Amino acid sequence: MRDFLPADKARRERVLAVIRDRYRAHGFDEIETPVMEEYSRLHAGIGGDNEKLAYNVLKRGLDPEALRAAADDQSQLTDLGLRYDLTVPLARFYATNRGQLPAVFRAIQIAPVWRAERPQKGRYRQFVQCDIDIIGDASARAEAELAVATLDTLEALGLEGGSIRINDRRALDWMLDSFGFTADERPGVLITIDKLDKIGPHGVVAELRERGATAPAVDALEAFLTRPMTLEYNPYGERQIRKLLPPDAPDEIVSHLVGIGEAVAASRAGGDGDGDGIDIPLVFDPFLVRGMGYYTGTIFELAHPSVDYSLGGGGRYDGMIGRFLGQDVPAVGFSIGFERLVDLIEAADGDGPSAVVLVHDRDVPTGELLALKAALIAQGSRVRLEQRTKNLKALLERAASDGYTAFATVSAGTVPAGLEVKPLA
Amino acid sequence: MRDFLPADKARRERVLAVIRDRYRAHGFDEIETPVMEEYSRLHAGIGGDNEKLAYNVLKRGLDPEALRAAADDQSQLTDLGLRYDLTVPLARFYATNRGQLPAVFRAIQIAPVWRAERPQKGRYRQFVQCDIDIIGDASARAEAELAVATLDTLEALGLEGGSIRINDRRALDWMLDSFGFTADERPGVLITIDKLDKIGPHGVVAELRERGATAPAVDALEAFLTRPMTLEYNPYGERQIRKLLPPDAPDEIVSHLVGIGEAVAASRAGGDGDGDGIDIPLVFDPFLVRGMGYYTGTIFELAHPSVDYSLGGGGRYDGMIGRFLGQDVPAVGFSIGFERLVDLIEAADGDGPSAVVLVHDRDVPTGELLALKAALIAQGSRVRLEQRTKNLKALLERAASDGYTAFATVSAGTVPAGLEVKPLA
Repeated sequence: MRDFLPADKARRERVLAVIRDRYRAHGFDEIETPVMEEYSRLHAGIGGDNEKLAYNVLKRGLDPEALRAAADDQSQLTDLGLRYDLTVPLARFYATNRGQLPAVFRAIQIAPVWRAERPQKGRYRQFVQCDIDIIGDASARAEAELAVATLDTLEALGLEGGSIRINDRRALDWMLDSFGFTADERPGVLITIDKLDKIGPHGVVAELRERGATAPAVDALEAFLTRPMTLEYNPYGERQIRKLLPPDAPDEIVSHLVGIGEAVAASRAGGDGDGDGIDIPLVFDPFLVRGMGYYTGTIFELAHPSVDYSLGGGGRYDGMIGRFLGQDVPAVGFSIGFERLVDLIEAADGDGPSAVVLVHDRDVPTGELLALKAALIAQGSRVRLEQRTKNLKALLERAASDGYTAFATVSAGTVPAGLEVKPLA
Repeated sequence: MRDFLPADKARRERVLAVIRDRYRAHGFDEIETPVMEEYSRLHAGIGGDNEKLAYNVLKRGLDPEALRAAADDQSQLTDLGLRYDLTVPLARFYATNRGQLPAVFRAIQIAPVWRAERPQKGRYRQFVQCDIDIIGDASARAEAELAVATLDTLEALGLEGGSIRINDRRALDWMLDSFGFTADERPGVLITIDKLDKIGPHGVVAELRERGATAPAVDALEAFLTRPMTLEYNPYGERQIRKLLPPDAPDEIVSHLVGIGEAVAASRAGGDGDGDGIDIPLVFDPFLVRGMGYYTGTIFELAHPSVDYSLGGGGRYDGMIGRFLGQDVPAVGFSIGFERLVDLIEAADGDGPSAVVLVHDRDVPTGELLALKAALIAQGSRVRLEQRTKNLKALLERAASDGYTAFATVSAGTVPAGLEVKPLA
């Protein structure tokens, strides 16, 4: 958990304002849920491994008797916990407030979550997630709206050239089935396949053999992974998808993936919606897995050429809302990893209003100083007072690093003579 | 703890953006601290009654043995807690990061805090505070900068006519001493005096007699409270302050209060800093108390004619930073009660960009719809897609209540014919 000093905090708020603005433009509405949720909701089996990382809040008013009784069942000590993601709270929010929401609800959530991770570089115990979700639309349009809003947001932040890797959990499942993996062993096989980027096809095959997966299925996977392929250019669309899957992939899955591409193409090019003909920043990856167990269909991952890790991801989780509502409602979401993103954004404050440091001698009357400050604020500036120190250069350098762009020196008598505002180097 | 639906959340974010913008213009810098602080810091005696209301987080990895051992000392169960205010975290932040901060540090904190209050109307267990603090300036200028920034912010939110009640804890202490109350009984006397607005002078005197306070001191207080006063107009300044205090109030205290007024006057009028001559929205109230024990000098309370409760307050707490740093540093802060404020702000979204609902028939191709949406977004609009329902009126009313300002209907074939965007009633 970290403190954020002024320069960092200002950059974070600037990036959040852009994200909020773009998501809102795309018709998403921001909501907010309490930081604490009921313990039983946070531990309903939906959160996967994150459930184990939850911070739990001590019940109030426990007497020594109750404490001794809880020694062998710690869940008695707690009734609330800090959320570890924004998806479980969204499902609970939707179940609570459904009557007041539109038929298709497009939600923005921008908020911190907490996980008791072991301390390591780039992992924080409190971090911000930026989620958009569409609840109530089972069509490919929902995935397309999420993808377009996400790419537009990335571009508004100055990160051109982002792309979205896409797959469908049903395609993965069908493919593993067609190779001959049993339903029981598929979750374990997926964990190994998820390492394909890191250990390559031979590494995956070796690990599966070592783990004793069904041998003919591993052979079939190996043959597929190492099949000869012509390296021809092939934009996102049905031809590309069918070429990257084993033969005879189910039409329903392929057409959903194709539909997403067509809708993205229509949005991006303002064109005719023929996804096969033009370039769109979607990349079909039949071996994209994504960790969470609750995905039921499309899965995404956001990539940018400047980094070799994912900037976010998401997917369709049509089963989850039903866990809270008792009635299935389709849902799909995309989460930007804010902490990773914010590090890529330039610290530049250049487009803000002018920000002036008034460096004053000790003997300038307070009234004069505050009158100068008020006049500059009224002109639209941001103004900080600083009493002059011996090392003026150091003082101005600090002000520049805090985002100030100009300074003026004030001595007794400056006011009648007029203020000279100079740019900070 | 509450969920915030889209209309409420949008209003909250709009108000927060104004507050952040105004505070930044006045030279304050936003910081952020983690939601959880160490248990020992939250329970160091600084937080007053709020310490008892803290939510504590269960330690991880406790075994049954440790739990049984903790039965009679619950502090062993917890090492972190949720902050109950922003002042204790600020003092900790300043002690941690002092080397990277300017000599006079003007902090903004806009963040939620948690208190396990009994549920009652208008009290929440999670609520947002907006604090500004100036650390490192013992002069009246610090109080003036806080007051001016607060009043400017209130006005930027459309709440003209706010005012700040002001007093000094040292003046209270001197006054009670001069009446003859002993040092030991003064804290209890202050609790009673704090009710002056509610129970009046006679109520205060009666309660003090009942509690057995030093009788001649109560007599002196009664004589002072009921003394004859000429009701002449008297703007904030030395004359007003001396008139409202018993005779011979210490010059040091009076001149600090006068200095605040002069600096506020210079800021507000751009004038000559003579606080005695012009109207400023400061009101000296010699019986203003404020609850927290850590105040050492000036205390404030923010009032607005539209409500009979305070919208915020603050004061000088020169002793607190030293508790964390081991070296005294002057500090003064002002906190806006965001939850009370936000209820006073109009829900109007009028100054936002145009927001268009595209009401479409079921059979409009997704590509056409998303192309229309993209074109409107590119023109600067906010756009929501809504599939047409039988009750179009209800659909449009909901959209209007969500902040949408215009709509267009889309049927198959609309695209070639062109879109007609109409205002929402």
